Formats: sequence, C-alpha cells, structure tokens
Amino acid sequence: MRTRKKKWTAGELENNPLILHGAQALAGALDGARPVHLELGCGKGRFIAEMARRNPHIRYVGVERDPTILAAAARLALSADDKAAGLAPGLPLFMVAEADTLTDIFAPGSIARLYINFCDPWPNRKKWAKRRLTHGNYLSLYERLLIPEIFFKTDNRQLFEFSIESLSERGWKLRGVSLDLHASGITDNVMTEYEEKFSSRGMPIYRLEAYRN
Amino acid sequence: MRTRKKKWTAGELENNPLILHGAQALAGALDGARPVHLELGCGKGRFIAEMARRNPHIRYVGVERDPTILAAAARLALSADDKAAGLAPGLPLFMVAEADTLTDIFAPGSIARLYINFCDPWPNRKKWAKRRLTHGNYLSLYERLLIPEIFFKTDNRQLFEFSIESLSERGWKLRGVSLDLHASGITDNVMTEYEEKFSSRGMPIYRLEAYRN
Repeated sequence: MRTRKKKWTAGELENNPLILHGAQALAGALDGARPVHLELGCGKGRFIAEMARRNPHIRYVGVERDPTILAAAARLALSADDKAAGLAPGLPLFMVAEADTLTDIFAPGSIARLYINFCDPWPNRKKWAKRRLTHGNYLSLYERLLIPEIFFKTDNRQLFEFSIESLSERGWKLRGVSLDLHASGITDNVMTEYEEKFSSRGMPIYRLEAYRN
Repeated sequence: MRTRKKKWTAGELENNPLILHGAQALAGALDGARPVHLELGCGKGRFIAEMARRNPHIRYVGVERDPTILAAAARLALSADDKAAGLAPGLPLFMVAEADTLTDIFAPGSIARLYINFCDPWPNRKKWAKRRLTHGNYLSLYERLLIPEIFFKTDNRQLFEFSIESLSERGWKLRGVSLDLHASGITDNVMTEYEEKFSSRGMPIYRLEAYRN
C-alpha cells in the first residue's frame, strides 16, 4: 500500500498542472495582474480551492510541506473543476515547500495576503514555540517578504493567545478579532477540513487579521 | 429607605479616611515612595482591597463614579482591617470620579499601572463604543497620563475582541493574554465580585496586559 501511495503521489506531483516546481515556475505562472494570496500549510486544499472559486480576481497559491497531502489537494482542486485547465482563473496553484524557504520562492512584495489556517500549535513545550508559524522568527520572515496582512484561524486557545502576543510585540495591528467565529454572525467564512471537524464538536474557532500599519 | 441610604453614603463619604476628595488631597496622600496602581471602576472594592493587603509596597487607588458604591467599598476595606488606620500601607485609597476627569486628578507619570476589571461593555450599539474604557479616546487619555501598563479583565467576549483591536491599533503591546483565565493555571489571580459570579457559572474570563513599548 505504501509503495502504491507513493507512486500515485509522484505521478500527481509530476503531472498535475496546478503544482509548480521551483521559484521560476511560480514566477512564470503569476501574471502580475492579480494580487497573490498565499496559504501557508494548505493541507488538502479545501479552503484555498473554494476561495479561488469565489474570487477569480485573486491568484491563490497553496504551500504545503507534505508532498502526499499537497498532491491530494491539487488532485481534488483539479477534479472538482470542469474546465480542467491547469492555470484557469478559478483554480489555485500549489507548491511543496517548507515555511522557512518562502524567501527563496517569493520576491519581496509579491504576496498581498497570507493565510494561516489551523497550523500545528506545537503545544506545551517552550522550546517548540519557535516552530509555530506565528512565532517572531516567522513574522520576521513575512516582514522581509513585505507581506502586508495575515489572516489567521485556529481552534487552539493557547496558540491564539501566543499569536496575539507575538503579532502585537512586532507591531502588527490586530483587526477582525473573533473568539468564537461561528457565533459571530460572519456569513462569508470558508471552512477548512479541520475547522468543520472542530466546529461541529462545539469548539470555538479563533480568528484574527493582522496588518503592517 | 432611599433617604436613609443616601444619609449613610454621605456620612461615609465625609468621614471614611480612605476616601479622598480632590486632586490636592490625593497628592498629599501619595507619598511618592510607592508606585501607584489605579483601578478604574473599582466597584465594591473587593479586588483592590485584597491587592492592597497582599502588596503593601504598592499604593492602590480605586476610582468609582457611583458615590454609593464607592462609600460601600471604603467601608468594607476599612472594617476588614484591624488597624483601622486610614492611610496604613495595607489599605487602598478611594476617590469618586469619572474616567474622563482622570487628567484633572492625576499628574502625568504618577500612575504606574491601570487596572480595568469588568467594566461596562456597552454592547451592540456602535454609537456606544466610545463609552467603553478601552476605546481609543480613553487610551489616548491614559497615554496623556503616561500610564505604561494596563491590566484588563472581562467576561464579555465582544468587549475583549474590541479591546484587543483598540489597544493594538494604538501600538500597545499585548502580553499575558488569556482567553480562559481560570483554566490557565494562574494561581495568584485576585477575583472581583463580578468575576466570581460569572466564573462560577462556567463562563470564561478574558484577560490581558497591555504595555506602552
């Protein structure tokens, strides 16, 4: 089973036109006319595929470090679309990458918005804090990329508390804060796979937007 | 009943040595050696009296706009103390005042910390937002007083969301954020009357510290 799964992943990674390989391929695919919204840790891509469908004037790019999950995301996004044209406006692009390598892939100023949805909270142990995608070190990386806004959701209370402190410490302005997103009356929220699962168990979803000035 | 209550209040306000009248009386009572921690809206004073008992190296001042409530706070604080010496280190001082008049009473730099506990959330209506004690207008007033830190607690989710946004908008750094204070393992928390009531109903208590730089 393991080998078959690997084989399938490799084929998908190679042949799915939504999956880009390397900074050059990405630069070629971005037309410059549409603002780029990046989801860091896009998982199976449900959120980003739906966002792309709803907002064809935005170019969505999903980054995920796990190739198997990314391959599944790209396959789902493509198969859900009748047009099946790899770079069609209503489809997102995907790329296998670690967060640390974003500065190798994207030019400063090329990302108009960053989405971080239900990232790994790395709970409890203090020495793991710097692996959280809202740690000061990552914020510094986003700042070097001149990312002007971050949209963040999580079900993890401690991660949300940590993120508020971390963002405000570096001078990001916090807006659109919700400590119970699904009780807040917002109607245009697009749910991720995790979000639906946690929310259906009655757990509150925490959400914020952070802006550089 | 109403008259008797008023009479009692007037007597207490006049005779209780913990209650100060006017900026001059306050300036005389502050010895300059101890940092001043102000509670804005101290209610019946349970929080500030307990804080004063625990931290005799701090000079606590409780401000409340309702004279009847303030009189009760001062009476409770005094009667709970065996020493019954009005300006003893372990007792707080009290003053009837509106938040808007703080700049008439305190000199810039004289308040080392501001406590805001369970203030009126002024919910729902946008035009009431500026009455909230964490509205930008009030933050501007605290800034003119050079208050370097604010400790804030509430049971009201919307007020807490509003306060995070308002504080971060004006560049305050948020630390010690808790979205469920009584589940966070903090052991040295002093509860207010409201806090005990809401918390015993299983409602989460929200809490943060905000710092100027």
